[in-house]
Amino acid sequence: MANIKYEILEKIGKISESPKGWTKELNLISWNGRAAKYDLRDWAPDHEKMGKGITLTKEELKRLRDTLNGMNLG
Amino acid sequence: MANIKYEILEKIGKISESPKGWTKELNLISWNGRAAKYDLRDWAPDHEKMGKGITLTKEELKRLRDTLNGMNLG
Repeated sequence: MANIKYEILEKIGKISESPKGWTKELNLISWNGRAAKYDLRDWAPDHEKMGKGITLTKEELKRLRDTLNGMNLG
Repeated sequence: MANIKYEILEKIGKISESPKGWTKELNLISWNGRAAKYDLRDWAPDHEKMGKGITLTKEELKRLRDTLNGMNLG
């Protein structure tokens, strides 16, 4: 993960927190100075380390939202 | 990615498709014979290769759904 620069432009929501304090978060992030993308990712406490994650466009978030709304999650 | 076995138990939804045919999908997957997890991931055409992705629990999907519903995505 060396040499990756990022800037969290907007903290949108915390999805979960593990017993060790890692959080799964949805944020709006600029990677290496590029245009901002939505980012769903695990983070160590205080964002000291980043875990696995994926980036999503706004269109993908909309489709994901509609997909989740179509599920019977309770 | 060698030696990772998985079984797609349920194809829930396609979130997007790239010009090269890679798809971002939400599926219910059992990894290495373990209990099924929700999985948001990029896949090559015909699922020949898997790209980056994350697994989520049902509770995380619910929180994610509620977070997305609170956004003004249009």
